[in-house]
Amino acid sequence: MARVAADIERELDRLLSPTDTVPPRLLEAMRYACLEAGKRFRPILVHAGAALGHVDRASITRVGAAIELVHCYSLVHDDLPAMDDAELRRGKPSVHRQFGEATAILAGDALNALAMEVLARADWPAAAPLRLELVVGLGRAAGAAGMCGGQMLDLESSSERLLSEEELVQLQRLKTGALIGFSLEAGARLAGLDAAALRALTVYADALGLAFQIRDDLLDLEVGETGKMAGRDAALGRKTFVTLLGAPAARARLIELRQQGWSALSRAKLETNLLGQLFDFVIDRSS
Amino acid sequence: MARVAADIERELDRLLSPTDTVPPRLLEAMRYACLEAGKRFRPILVHAGAALGHVDRASITRVGAAIELVHCYSLVHDDLPAMDDAELRRGKPSVHRQFGEATAILAGDALNALAMEVLARADWPAAAPLRLELVVGLGRAAGAAGMCGGQMLDLESSSERLLSEEELVQLQRLKTGALIGFSLEAGARLAGLDAAALRALTVYADALGLAFQIRDDLLDLEVGETGKMAGRDAALGRKTFVTLLGAPAARARLIELRQQGWSALSRAKLETNLLGQLFDFVIDRSS
Repeated sequence: MARVAADIERELDRLLSPTDTVPPRLLEAMRYACLEAGKRFRPILVHAGAALGHVDRASITRVGAAIELVHCYSLVHDDLPAMDDAELRRGKPSVHRQFGEATAILAGDALNALAMEVLARADWPAAAPLRLELVVGLGRAAGAAGMCGGQMLDLESSSERLLSEEELVQLQRLKTGALIGFSLEAGARLAGLDAAALRALTVYADALGLAFQIRDDLLDLEVGETGKMAGRDAALGRKTFVTLLGAPAARARLIELRQQGWSALSRAKLETNLLGQLFDFVIDRSS
Repeated sequence: MARVAADIERELDRLLSPTDTVPPRLLEAMRYACLEAGKRFRPILVHAGAALGHVDRASITRVGAAIELVHCYSLVHDDLPAMDDAELRRGKPSVHRQFGEATAILAGDALNALAMEVLARADWPAAAPLRLELVVGLGRAAGAAGMCGGQMLDLESSSERLLSEEELVQLQRLKTGALIGFSLEAGARLAGLDAAALRALTVYADALGLAFQIRDDLLDLEVGETGKMAGRDAALGRKTFVTLLGAPAARARLIELRQQGWSALSRAKLETNLLGQLFDFVIDRSS
């Protein structure tokens, strides 16, 4: 995992190199949003999917970096005053606090465009049809029927507060699940897996994505309990799996989801140590 | 031109059809931003480039619609309070006035993703390598070294007010010129033009893009003179070609640019009536 993260850091640094035409302050904001940031969870999923076959490291790194560009742009926009109004991100001032709101909006937009450009470009090993599939998949996962759609449902839920458990599952499936699922799928496509294998991975990824979100909701509460930060979700009036089900039932749900994901992999004979460890990491993580 | 606009309207309506997964309010904002909107100038450029060869109508329409999705998303984000803070767009309330700021940000983001997805998809006639070239080209034209970069320079110039003519040319080349140039180039790529022809078209497109902007600046002043609206550029303290050169010199520059563009086309034997009329339209238009 550390090697994947280092590869991604190097690739993002290279993809975000200074040029004559990019305004320096815009590039600085884009680099601030993407470099030395986060767990690189999505690129690790690309790696785990690719590890089901034989895939060159350059391809894993390129696809992971493109997805990370999208993930980072979405955090920049989610943090804006009109959205979650977050002053801090990963312990540093959020992009709009550091560079101003207009620059944050533009940096996000430019990262979104760059993600698609670097997937489509011919300067990495994947063949043309595969690069196209990945652009289509990333566009869908990040668009109105994926990440952006989920964030929209989330914003509507904060004001309406009428979400059922089913609606919350649907919200999270779009908001975080779509990009998480695409990350694993993209790796598996690099590995050349067939349609049946991709379907089994989708079931696993769906369970993993929900588990990721439930663990996030639990962490918000636990961090609140240790006093480092008051439960931000509750403060924002946001319905989470924890506020909906209570913490014990939410923890039980994590175990159920792990079993669901694992049996889908077993049925398709795709159960690797790496995919097992990944689920454990997601439901045990403390940050 | 009316036929191109009608084709684009129909294609955008189709690309923005309701589905089970897209939240209705998000889709509504995306449709509000894109439908029954504007002159469809960029799709007309795609058509003019494609008319240099034999290109099927479906391809011209798909590429024009993808570029229009990007153009419309950029207007949604440019109008935001943190950017130009525009209450009206084409005589209607801007997207954030109509739907709220968060929805406007998300609608723009989702349109950006959709543009790339529909270019990459296999449901229109272009071959895979061409679709990839177009995704790369659109990503570049819209990204940090194109449209987003130009908007960044524009924001910096509004506060600093120290722009030389050369800097203003560079700003506009990125802000509006990159996407205008790409529109014409994309059409020419559909037509299978060779590298020498593409270079000549780039010179023409560069002149056209600058002329488009200078005409915009003159219109801002003229509309101001007729009292419909006080010169918004001057009100925002923004340096334009008109505030920099004065209106008579700006008008003379339009004629020079037309000659430059035309001689590049002549040297490459690409001077069509359509490309001539297009330049006349750009420098004579009254809206």
